[in-house]
Amino acid sequence: MKGVIATRAPGVSVVDLSHGVPPQDVIAGALVLRASAPYFPAGTVHVAVVDPGVGTARRPICVETADALFVGPDNGVLSLAAPANRVRRIVELANPSYRIEPASRTFHGRDVFAPAAAALATGVPASALGPALEAMQRVNLPAATRTGDRVHAEVVYVDGFGNLTTNVDAPALAGRLRIEIGGRRIDGVSETYGSVESGDLVAVVNSWGMLEIALRDGSARAALDAPVGTPLVLDVA
Amino acid sequence: MKGVIATRAPGVSVVDLSHGVPPQDVIAGALVLRASAPYFPAGTVHVAVVDPGVGTARRPICVETADALFVGPDNGVLSLAAPANRVRRIVELANPSYRIEPASRTFHGRDVFAPAAAALATGVPASALGPALEAMQRVNLPAATRTGDRVHAEVVYVDGFGNLTTNVDAPALAGRLRIEIGGRRIDGVSETYGSVESGDLVAVVNSWGMLEIALRDGSARAALDAPVGTPLVLDVA
Amino acid sequence: MKGVIATRAPGVSVVDLSHGVPPQDVIAGALVLRASAPYFPAGTVHVAVVDPGVGTARRPICVETADALFVGPDNGVLSLAAPANRVRRIVELANPSYRIEPASRTFHGRDVFAPAAAALATGVPASALGPALEAMQRVNLPAATRTGDRVHAEVVYVDGFGNLTTNVDAPALAGRLRIEIGGRRIDGVSETYGSVESGDLVAVVNSWGMLEIALRDGSARAALDAPVGTPLVLDVA
Repeated sequence: MKGVIATRAPGVSVVDLSHGVPPQDVIAGALVLRASAPYFPAGTVHVAVVDPGVGTARRPICVETADALFVGPDNGVLSLAAPANRVRRIVELANPSYRIEPASRTFHGRDVFAPAAAALATGVPASALGPALEAMQRVNLPAATRTGDRVHAEVVYVDGFGNLTTNVDAPALAGRLRIEIGGRRIDGVSETYGSVESGDLVAVVNSWGMLEIALRDGSARAALDAPVGTPLVLDVA
Repeated sequence: MKGVIATRAPGVSVVDLSHGVPPQDVIAGALVLRASAPYFPAGTVHVAVVDPGVGTARRPICVETADALFVGPDNGVLSLAAPANRVRRIVELANPSYRIEPASRTFHGRDVFAPAAAALATGVPASALGPALEAMQRVNLPAATRTGDRVHAEVVYVDGFGNLTTNVDAPALAGRLRIEIGGRRIDGVSETYGSVESGDLVAVVNSWGMLEIALRDGSARAALDAPVGTPLVLDVA
Repeated sequence: MKGVIATRAPGVSVVDLSHGVPPQDVIAGALVLRASAPYFPAGTVHVAVVDPGVGTARRPICVETADALFVGPDNGVLSLAAPANRVRRIVELANPSYRIEPASRTFHGRDVFAPAAAALATGVPASALGPALEAMQRVNLPAATRTGDRVHAEVVYVDGFGNLTTNVDAPALAGRLRIEIGGRRIDGVSETYGSVESGDLVAVVNSWGMLEIALRDGSARAALDAPVGTPLVLDVA
C-alpha cells in the first residue's frame, strides 16, 4: 500500500495509525478510527482496511465529511468516524483510473484503497472516484442498557496493554459506582491508573472518553480472562 | 537505522515494508521483498536486513537492477526481487566512507546497510560503494513437483492473519483441483475468502499470485497447525 | 500522537523508534533511547512514553542536552540518554498553550508529550514550555558487581529475537571469560552470532557495547527461560 501511495502521490506523508486492530475486528477498527481521526489536520485522508469481505459484493467506498476523507470497505469500519450528520458524500470506488486493474480479490488495500487515497491526497475530488451512494453500512456497537440503578455493559475493545474499553460513555458515570466483571468487584471510578496499588484492578475514564477497566502495572485482559464481549455490571450506589 | 538515514540523507522518506518477517527467515524476507518492490517508484532504495550471518564472512551487498536498488546481506534475501535478467550490477559494501566504522559485528543494519542506503538515496552511484561482484547468493525456494495429475507442494510463508502461502503459482492452477493439507480437504480454488462459510477452509489465488490456504474469519495456521514447510497435495480432477 | 504532531507541526518528520518496549518497562525504554538517540541528527526531538504513572503526581518534562531534546514522563525513561554532564535544562511541561486541555488522565502521550514535541520541532524554546526544574528522576540500572575474578550480573533487556542484553559493559570483558546462565555454560566471548553452531548459545558484545547472550538461529530467552532480571556469573580465567 505504501509503495502504491509513494508512486501515485509522491511526497505525501503517510502515518501508520495502529497495528493493533485484531484480524477481522471491524468494530475495533471503527473505534480506533473514531478516536484518532479528530486529532489529524482537516482534510486528512484516512484509510481503514479491516476487510474480511474483501473481493465479495461488499463495496469499496470513500466517505467525505465536513472534516476529512475516509477510504475503506463498506462494512461499517468507517461509520463511527463519520457520523451521519457530518457526511457530505459517499461514493463507490469504481473508476478504474483510480484502481490497479485487475484488482486482487484478496488485497483491496493495495489495489483499490491505496490508489483511491493517493488520488484524494493529490487533489482528485471524491466525486471523480465513482458513482454516488445513498448510504453506507454502519457497525452495531453494542449498547449498554440501564434498568433502574443497574447498567449492563460489555467490553468492546482491548488495547495492547490489556486494558478493557467498555461501551459505557463517561457522561453515564455520574454518581458512585460499583462495578462487577469476571467475578471481581471494583468500587468507584478512579482518576488515574496510579490511584490503586500495583496489581489491583482500577476503573478509569480513558482517553476515548469511555469507561475502562485496567490492572495497574499489568493486563486486565489476562487477569480477568476477559476478551471483547465480556459482560460487566454497574450498580449506582 | 532510521537515525543513521535521517543524519546522512536528511529529508529522504523512509517506509517500513514489513514487521512480520520471522527472525532468521531469509525466504520469507525474500518473498515479501519480491511481492512489494514492484509497487514502489522506479529507483527506490530497498533495504532488507534478515541477516542471521551478520558479522561472518557473508558479504554485505548492493544490487542494482533496471528498476531499483537493493541493499542487504548476500544470503539470498535480495535475490527473488532481483531476477538475474534484471541485474545490472552487484557491489560489496566495502567503502568505509559509506559505513560506520568500526562496524558492530551484530548489527550491520545500523552500521553498514543504513549508511549505504543513505548514500544511494542522496545520489551516490552504486559503483562507489565498493568493488564489483560477479554474482550473489540466491535462495532455494522449494519447488512444487508435478507427477501426472498430482502436485506435491508446501507452505512457504505465513502472514499475520495465519493465511498460508504455498509454492504453487497461479498459472499452475488450471483445471479443477482437490487440495489436501493437514488431513483436511479443500475442493477447488475460490474467488475470495468470502466464498465459503465462516470457519471453513478456503483456497484462493492471493495478491502475490500464489495459491493460498486460508480459514474464513480465522487462522489456517492455527486450525491446521501448519507452519512453513507443511506439505500439501493437489490432485487435478 | 502522530495526528497531534501533524496538526501542530505540519511537515515535521516522525520516526517510530521502537514498538518493542514491554509495557511499563521504564528501564527497557531508557536503554533503547540511550542506544538510539546518538544516531539521530543534532537537535532531534525524542519522545518516550513509557509511563505507568500517567496522570499521577509524576511530572511531564522536557530535557535539553547539548545534543538533543527529550520529552516524556519524569520517571527515569529519559535519564540514560541524558547523562548529567550533558544536561543544559529541565522544564516541567506546564504551559497550557503547549498542551491539549483538559488533558486525559490516562494518555499524556497525546495530550501533553506530543504537543510539547510539536512545539519544540517548530522552534519553540524549551524554556517556554514551563518552569525550570533542578533535577529529574534517574533509573537505577542494576550494576554488575565484581569480587576478585568473579562478576555477578543480570539480564536487563530482551530484544525481539530473544537475545539477552546484560548489564556488563564491553570494557569489563578483558581476559578469557567463562559465563554461567540458567544452568548452562558459555566459554568465551565470540565475535559474531555465527561463531557457533546453529542451536548453540553464544556470548557477544552487541551493538550497544554490552555483553549479550544469544542462541544462534533461535531465542535465548526461550531456551534459557531467562526474562529480565535473570542472573549470570562471569569467571575470569
